[in-house]
Amino acid sequence: MTSHTITPSTWHAVDADDPIRARIVQAARDVRERTPLAQSFTNFVTMNFVANAQLAAGGSAAMSLLDQDIVEISSVAGATYINVGTLLPSYQDALHAIVRAFKESGHMWVLDPVAAGLGAARTAILTDMANAAPNIVRGNASELIALASMWGLQSADGSSRPEGVESVDDVESAAAAARAAAQFITTERGEGAVAVSGAIDLVTDGDRTFRLPGGSPLMTKITGAGCSLGGVTATYLCVTDPLTAALAASLLYNRASEMAAEHAHGPGSFQAEFLDALWTCAPEDIANGELFEVRD
Amino acid sequence: MTSHTITPSTWHAVDADDPIRARIVQAARDVRERTPLAQSFTNFVTMNFVANAQLAAGGSAAMSLLDQDIVEISSVAGATYINVGTLLPSYQDALHAIVRAFKESGHMWVLDPVAAGLGAARTAILTDMANAAPNIVRGNASELIALASMWGLQSADGSSRPEGVESVDDVESAAAAARAAAQFITTERGEGAVAVSGAIDLVTDGDRTFRLPGGSPLMTKITGAGCSLGGVTATYLCVTDPLTAALAASLLYNRASEMAAEHAHGPGSFQAEFLDALWTCAPEDIANGELFEVRD
Amino acid sequence: MTSHTITPSTWHAVDADDPIRARIVQAARDVRERTPLAQSFTNFVTMNFVANAQLAAGGSAAMSLLDQDIVEISSVAGATYINVGTLLPSYQDALHAIVRAFKESGHMWVLDPVAAGLGAARTAILTDMANAAPNIVRGNASELIALASMWGLQSADGSSRPEGVESVDDVESAAAAARAAAQFITTERGEGAVAVSGAIDLVTDGDRTFRLPGGSPLMTKITGAGCSLGGVTATYLCVTDPLTAALAASLLYNRASEMAAEHAHGPGSFQAEFLDALWTCAPEDIANGELFEVRD
Repeated sequence: MTSHTITPSTWHAVDADDPIRARIVQAARDVRERTPLAQSFTNFVTMNFVANAQLAAGGSAAMSLLDQDIVEISSVAGATYINVGTLLPSYQDALHAIVRAFKESGHMWVLDPVAAGLGAARTAILTDMANAAPNIVRGNASELIALASMWGLQSADGSSRPEGVESVDDVESAAAAARAAAQFITTERGEGAVAVSGAIDLVTDGDRTFRLPGGSPLMTKITGAGCSLGGVTATYLCVTDPLTAALAASLLYNRASEMAAEHAHGPGSFQAEFLDALWTCAPEDIANGELFEVRD
Repeated sequence: MTSHTITPSTWHAVDADDPIRARIVQAARDVRERTPLAQSFTNFVTMNFVANAQLAAGGSAAMSLLDQDIVEISSVAGATYINVGTLLPSYQDALHAIVRAFKESGHMWVLDPVAAGLGAARTAILTDMANAAPNIVRGNASELIALASMWGLQSADGSSRPEGVESVDDVESAAAAARAAAQFITTERGEGAVAVSGAIDLVTDGDRTFRLPGGSPLMTKITGAGCSLGGVTATYLCVTDPLTAALAASLLYNRASEMAAEHAHGPGSFQAEFLDALWTCAPEDIANGELFEVRD
Repeated sequence: MTSHTITPSTWHAVDADDPIRARIVQAARDVRERTPLAQSFTNFVTMNFVANAQLAAGGSAAMSLLDQDIVEISSVAGATYINVGTLLPSYQDALHAIVRAFKESGHMWVLDPVAAGLGAARTAILTDMANAAPNIVRGNASELIALASMWGLQSADGSSRPEGVESVDDVESAAAAARAAAQFITTERGEGAVAVSGAIDLVTDGDRTFRLPGGSPLMTKITGAGCSLGGVTATYLCVTDPLTAALAASLLYNRASEMAAEHAHGPGSFQAEFLDALWTCAPEDIANGELFEVRD
């Protein structure tokens, strides 16, 4: 468990019988029983790990980089994961078409705004998504702050420039941006949530805000930890609402990474152990993970 | 071993001294001794696993997405593996040029028609290949049924729409499509075979049809099981005829996945154990695997 | 330790108190303490393994395929790794712009001329880099010979055609090409080095030439061994000079692969063990590896 500096008086442990825990355990069971298909349009670096994590978490996976494929599969997929990590010149048109098709059909999707703020192409793609919003945004603190600024939800302070794919900002610094983004996408799509990953994760639907202090620091020593969490969040979104999906996926990741760290001898064995733990982690263990609600 | 519902009276266990088993053991030995180069033009998701599987099976690997590279390498490679899983806009022209060059030079190649039936770009690419056919097609039941329809070999019944990369049809439902495709490519290229992967695999050269009931269900919980089987089939095609190559690669996959499942604790450790098993599986164990010939 | 046929009289073991060993141990410590960011523009096959190797070696990673992203990140990254393994049509313009921006800003970078000599597109890209040279070239013998010829440093003898990504030439046959390339890039960039990977590695700055006989043959049975060494060389280049970076990364790879081979049962477990060994290998063990200086 990670130590934290935030005043504990604003943190309230979520009760074992809080309805959100019942929704989480139900979602975890549904994923295992239904093997839901979540498709992805995602970066080349971690594509394989995203698909393997979705399969290990109990879902099924499909991936494409053509708008026509993605729109066609969205009619049979429960949700789509879109990650802007490694762009190619053809993506700007493709993503414009995809998110508009999702807006029209009501298809649910998760945005991972990797390296938001870096490069004109990525900024154009992400800014455009304000007009055809996702149901969930999952990113690190720097990315959430940059995205909220692009969407006109709050001004960027200039301190949150992304350094590669690493966040240079603490999760807490993105709390206001996360809540603003969650409120925005909830208004746009009917239901939405934002997950900010870090040493202590933050998940909010704009109304309720949660903090998740679990996990292992070895997650920062493998590539694709965040991306695959976004993919598994889409797997959960196939069977439940955005807030429950974001909480369930993040709790699963925290518990599975702790299980993996117990047996790993370094980042290589950790990666295999982590996929095994995604596979073996019981729905009850996911739902009973450390979860606090923050009330200001 | 997987249970099956097909009338056993049509299945005949292939004898230990059947010449096909001798050809399989010879192919397995030749791969280990010659380290043959099979190149690939394949999807981004499982590219790394395809290359690692080819190396673990005893071959060597090269990969490109430019027609010029692929055509140039084909003069030194024993065979090429082409997989249409994740298309980019430039692929339609590239693949058109590549398969025509292979037709002219007589170069042997394996087609993996991933998600056949999905999207106009993929349909155009696959339909075009009827005019410059591969020596082996490896896919799941849905894909074979869709491909045979595109090639005008039989009418699609509309029930075989691909759902992402998962097959929604049983292998048996693709038996007629597989035989028709095998006869077509044998006529076009002089020699050919088709492998349909599933709980019980089917391999046919259009004349003889085999069923392979082995393997582990954990193969469906890692991404790239089918793609890498296609890649390893190309490795075997470097040293033997299409029917023997398709049988040898599928038997190796069944045996290696059973070996891996004995030691694995989930999909992560299974993936590492599977590559180890590809490496350690003896040629005799490959050739002695469960193999039935189906006579109607 | 690999046996060798070269006259031992020209090989001199580098003393334990040679200043180069002190620079190597310092570089290894600095990487662990600073977690330096090295970005990559690299091939699709081994991208994931490159990033994971950089993280396991103690660095951090970012990857893009757009010139704008790469140039922008270069202002915060310590070095860049460029690998021309799997080209797309957009790369020729992108790489032209990137290397010119690096020349102007003085940004340090590592070139991995994968499959040099294969295809007109790759030849055009690599030939162009003579006008905006890297600080380090890392490749196999065939690639170094082909690159030196493209850069007009020596005539190719026609025997070094690349066969896929495998080298068909012995490291020793590339010694003159490596020294010529090292002298060329040192003149162009102020400081430079060349590393030729093989059973016995060669590292030179054009003045001093070293041979590194360690490592495990299992490294040739996983894909990305060479690419990820190039990526980790860029990680080291963030904290030290080119010669020290090339030596430190190659010594780390030799030691870590020996550690991994002790525990591996095949290429799958070897890959996980190797990443673990990159993570656990002590700076002193890196610096004390087998290292010879060759004096003719």
